[in-house]
Amino acid sequence: MKKDINSIMNANYSYTEDFGDKANLGMPPSKKIAILTCMDARLDPAKFAGLNEGEAHVIRNAGGRATDDAIRSLVISSEVLGTKNWLVIHHSECGMEAFTDEELSKTLEDKFNTSEGKYINWMSTSDIQECVKQDIERLKSSPLVSSDINISGYMFDVKTGKLTKIVNN
Amino acid sequence: MKKDINSIMNANYSYTEDFGDKANLGMPPSKKIAILTCMDARLDPAKFAGLNEGEAHVIRNAGGRATDDAIRSLVISSEVLGTKNWLVIHHSECGMEAFTDEELSKTLEDKFNTSEGKYINWMSTSDIQECVKQDIERLKSSPLVSSDINISGYMFDVKTGKLTKIVNN
Repeated sequence: MKKDINSIMNANYSYTEDFGDKANLGMPPSKKIAILTCMDARLDPAKFAGLNEGEAHVIRNAGGRATDDAIRSLVISSEVLGTKNWLVIHHSECGMEAFTDEELSKTLEDKFNTSEGKYINWMSTSDIQECVKQDIERLKSSPLVSSDINISGYMFDVKTGKLTKIVNN
Repeated sequence: MKKDINSIMNANYSYTEDFGDKANLGMPPSKKIAILTCMDARLDPAKFAGLNEGEAHVIRNAGGRATDDAIRSLVISSEVLGTKNWLVIHHSECGMEAFTDEELSKTLEDKFNTSEGKYINWMSTSDIQECVKQDIERLKSSPLVSSDINISGYMFDVKTGKLTKIVNN
């Protein structure tokens, strides 16, 4: 683990050496874009969507879901920092299809000797595409989400890198 | 906005053309790393930490905070997908210092004619470094976070790109 941290710190040193004009970037995303996507290690939103530093907010959690915390982040993104174009991007072979909430709660109870996991909505699912639609509906129905925000939904294919639009604004 | 979506789809097409071996990546992060950081547009964790697709989970929200949803994601990251090394990374000039919860609630009430914003903990702050420490304490005190997980804390300087460790495991 120490090796991995050292590797990150060395890579970061190289990054600072070529930092250049990025020092002048402002806080509001210049493209007024916010992306909500999954934490999955195979997804690199900046790379797969061609975004540079300074251009877009990126919000990520397990599943890329429109949780209360994602909505907190997106409302700050739009109302404090001016984003107008939100993309919800889920993906194939998502880990959220690899377990059920009941299975995870049982695993956690066996390991940690607490029932706390039973009271958490882990958001496992068997239909990722349906989750994109539900999440967009949830965002659009929030009283704190402006109706002038463009919200669209996509699937990312982990076998090809391809984004496919599945929900138009 | 349509132009920006077209630009993303064009960039994505280029990404798929050079996708190569990434098609073979597995679901569990190969470096067993998870990063919790802010949604800020100036931060590109893969770039500033030198991480490739497949190596690390990335969880992002407004502030990079250890919210209930971040803990949901991190517990799935460790207990379903095997991460052992978590990095909490906040940054200078964070938008969470640019407003107070009261100010944002008032702005939202004026715009949307609802008091709903008053009941949300927006997590604005005046001390980002202290937030790193609090968040790591919160993660370590969760009954669902294994004591064998290495959790360290960092600040990212948006003027230089430099990561500085501020909390050791």
